[in-house]
Amino acid sequence: MRPYPLAMRETLRAELGSLTTELARATRLAGQMMINASRALSHADLGLAELVITSGTELWTLCDDLDQRCATLLVLQAPVATDLRMVTATMHAVGDVERMCTLAQHVAKIARMKRPTAPIPGDLRPVFARMGLLAATLAQDAATAIESRDPLSGDRLAEIDDEVDALRRQTFRILFGTDWSHGVEPAADAALIGRYYERFADHAVAIARQVSFLVTGLSPERP
Amino acid sequence: MRPYPLAMRETLRAELGSLTTELARATRLAGQMMINASRALSHADLGLAELVITSGTELWTLCDDLDQRCATLLVLQAPVATDLRMVTATMHAVGDVERMCTLAQHVAKIARMKRPTAPIPGDLRPVFARMGLLAATLAQDAATAIESRDPLSGDRLAEIDDEVDALRRQTFRILFGTDWSHGVEPAADAALIGRYYERFADHAVAIARQVSFLVTGLSPERP
Repeated sequence: MRPYPLAMRETLRAELGSLTTELARATRLAGQMMINASRALSHADLGLAELVITSGTELWTLCDDLDQRCATLLVLQAPVATDLRMVTATMHAVGDVERMCTLAQHVAKIARMKRPTAPIPGDLRPVFARMGLLAATLAQDAATAIESRDPLSGDRLAEIDDEVDALRRQTFRILFGTDWSHGVEPAADAALIGRYYERFADHAVAIARQVSFLVTGLSPERP
Repeated sequence: MRPYPLAMRETLRAELGSLTTELARATRLAGQMMINASRALSHADLGLAELVITSGTELWTLCDDLDQRCATLLVLQAPVATDLRMVTATMHAVGDVERMCTLAQHVAKIARMKRPTAPIPGDLRPVFARMGLLAATLAQDAATAIESRDPLSGDRLAEIDDEVDALRRQTFRILFGTDWSHGVEPAADAALIGRYYERFADHAVAIARQVSFLVTGLSPERP
């Protein structure tokens, strides 16, 4: 490993601190997008759905900027050890936030496409409301984990994610049960919406696992 | 940018060459997994479905190894310019291959879960057969792009991906058409299978775009 001079180290620390702040902000924005997407879905709110779809541009710009800053930092500062892990963990996490953004947009697009008929039949509404709430909570918790560098955040978020997975299984029981009377199209939509929530939650857990990796140096576990 | 001595550069070049070879191999393995998953699905072949599901472990180990080698290379060689881009592009691409692996497993798991009743009704079979073929072709093309460093591969694969997206829209037309008589469960499965193929293809395109980025230095376009 190559040491770096004190002045360079201070510049590096400042940039890493700023990257942390921005990554947490991006993660919170993704959470807010999913809150809005869920609300657009449950209320068949076209305006809110449009807002989610267009607001992705802001988050993507933020993510592109973070990615670029990581690359520049690697070139100019050649960080080592924990600093290097922090840069690579940030690059991984940026990829997760980008996907979370797209998944929130997918939920919003279903809300937009199905308006004015609300796409979620009554028996599924509480399940998706809970999944949306948990997904958004996971994004907020991941952002907090980034800031606090909590090594246990990965496991804690994975526990919440277990409930998301259980809710997804519940959607299939409802869809494939004898009481389902809403036909094919809402069932196909619901299968996809459940998938989008599940993946969104997975990405939030992946970010928290990157934080754990950063603090402990142990590779993130396979989900 | 910091220069590095000639001997170190040769070590670096050798390691980068080896990373390229292994990344291409991993991408081809993902393509083979999707070929097998598609066959398991269309033939309701339980043995092949199980093979896909278990063979993911091999690919994940390969991906973990690649990721670790990239991190080590960043620490020990502190690459700059094109070399650095190659390492970061490889890290991104490894993430894509991991997802392709998981998506092939998802297709195989639906094939396993629905056996002995084949999950794909007749009218959807040719559509999914074509999607599976295109998805696997994209993985092979992405692997070739990695080896040949073709700067145009991103655009070329994106064109093939357009057909995958068109086929996905076709599945919805079939599912939501008046002729659909197979009920809710195959419709929900089909919605998800279409999504898995689509995402698999997206990841292959993302890899090719990383190759273009590597050669041209221009950031990969937003899909």
